[in-house]
Amino acid sequence: MSSVDISALVADARAGRPSAVARLISLVEDESPHLRAVAAALSPYVGRARVLGLTGPPGVGKSTSTSMLVSAFRARDLRVGVLAIDPSSPFSGGALLGDRIRLHDHTTDPSVFIRSMATRGHLGGLATATPQALRVLDASGFDVVLVETVGVGQSEVDIVSLADTTVVLLAPGMGDGIQAAKAGILEVADVFVVNKADRDGADQTVRDLKHMISLGRRSLGPSWRQPIVRTVATSGDGAAELVSALDAHHDWLVSHGELTTRRETRARREIEAIAVRELRARLGGVRGGEVLDRLAEQVAAGSLDPYAAADELTGKLG
Amino acid sequence: MSSVDISALVADARAGRPSAVARLISLVEDESPHLRAVAAALSPYVGRARVLGLTGPPGVGKSTSTSMLVSAFRARDLRVGVLAIDPSSPFSGGALLGDRIRLHDHTTDPSVFIRSMATRGHLGGLATATPQALRVLDASGFDVVLVETVGVGQSEVDIVSLADTTVVLLAPGMGDGIQAAKAGILEVADVFVVNKADRDGADQTVRDLKHMISLGRRSLGPSWRQPIVRTVATSGDGAAELVSALDAHHDWLVSHGELTTRRETRARREIEAIAVRELRARLGGVRGGEVLDRLAEQVAAGSLDPYAAADELTGKLG
Repeated sequence: MSSVDISALVADARAGRPSAVARLISLVEDESPHLRAVAAALSPYVGRARVLGLTGPPGVGKSTSTSMLVSAFRARDLRVGVLAIDPSSPFSGGALLGDRIRLHDHTTDPSVFIRSMATRGHLGGLATATPQALRVLDASGFDVVLVETVGVGQSEVDIVSLADTTVVLLAPGMGDGIQAAKAGILEVADVFVVNKADRDGADQTVRDLKHMISLGRRSLGPSWRQPIVRTVATSGDGAAELVSALDAHHDWLVSHGELTTRRETRARREIEAIAVRELRARLGGVRGGEVLDRLAEQVAAGSLDPYAAADELTGKLG
Repeated sequence: MSSVDISALVADARAGRPSAVARLISLVEDESPHLRAVAAALSPYVGRARVLGLTGPPGVGKSTSTSMLVSAFRARDLRVGVLAIDPSSPFSGGALLGDRIRLHDHTTDPSVFIRSMATRGHLGGLATATPQALRVLDASGFDVVLVETVGVGQSEVDIVSLADTTVVLLAPGMGDGIQAAKAGILEVADVFVVNKADRDGADQTVRDLKHMISLGRRSLGPSWRQPIVRTVATSGDGAAELVSALDAHHDWLVSHGELTTRRETRARREIEAIAVRELRARLGGVRGGEVLDRLAEQVAAGSLDPYAAADELTGKLG
């Protein structure tokens, strides 16, 4: 592995070779020995891509909507990267094969790069690998990167902290869900999409959303009025309106200095996640894990409380 | 607040006073200045309660099933604690009021203590507060503690690491979900419940589960054959069979030394979570956050990569 020529890989990726992009993402996903060298090599080229997050409950049409957006950006001759995140929860209703198939329309287009990020059983892996994969796509010259995931907030990968603009998708007939979700989606959405807008209940969903927005107070600083766009992703209806709304939000971010703020927030979280991961590894490794094993035995037996144990453990980090 | 008499509170809680139990849980939830003193005071009394985790997709009848189990254990004159965890995801379909109402049947019973753990917007809070609340109930003399949550794996609170026995609930007509969930639920379930077993499709769900179990290999050491129990939680049908299955699993845990192993694993994760939280606070606090702010600016601007930034940050922990 020491024969990997990372600067050549980065140059190839920037020249538009999908295999080099894929290889770089693998190098950051696998926590390979080249991870740090790759991260350093990418740095000078990052910061150009627009990062759009798409999220929403299962069944709302996220992958179809992603595919629709890919087509819309391709029509403008922009290069588009897609990170489809499967948080690997058995109950998330995450990436099913059928969903992903819609994106296959684009797999023969060399200006579209699609990567499914799934790490069942590797908790913590996605939280550091996803921002790195995003940096690979950004540095490789993709103009737009779409990050698609189910759920927000509780997920290990917080799409909101990754994206410049977060799109929350809903669909008719999920009224209860909307009520339950109230506070959460108001906080995270920059743009709302009511997909499947040709179905019964779409008007009601839009009304419910408008009502929620009118009640909500946003804590994101300068006010941005969240638009509601109706789409039928399967037919492409509403794609132009959605892209306009995304452009308008991008312009707003730039003119209000929010783009820099959001990206610095993203960098801060990324640095923290890496540092915490490193410290966690050090904690587990204190005397080959022997200290933690002994402390856990004492806590389970009731002879020590977990806070005192944690103090002893961090005290040994040195 | 310095006038809190913690040992008196612990004595009151152990004497069966719900208000003392509630107060202690608040003291560990709020990260109050008394947190460490409470944790230390509880230690000698923990390790007696049986901890049962209930999980499953939204709509499967988790709260009704919890209520059914509470009744079954009360019929044996056992004291029962319930921690209902709302991971506060806008899309989780988590704690709706209607769900919780079923548990209200038990609210007048002084031998049942129900606490809803919800911390919307306080990421990281549940991960440390829930095990502490569990310790309060355990030390207060509850014979059984039921921990109910939606989802597993991606959730911040990993019910599997908290529980001695994990019950996964499914319901007829969720075939796709089961397929998608395959690997995940096989790994975590000690006991399967097919609730709403009076509905069409229950036989098929049981067959699907049996098929999955026959295909799966479990990585949990000594083999335990996961039973499938049919219930109709709304009527109480199947309650006795479920309790028998839970008892059988408890006996198996004890006879195979697995109970101690699981509880030491729980203690290890709890210690780690506290230590990581502490270290994360220290990272953010390096020179009043000024170092992290500067590093984030450099990373966002592309003049530094996040790994080098993380190294610089952890290097300043001292």
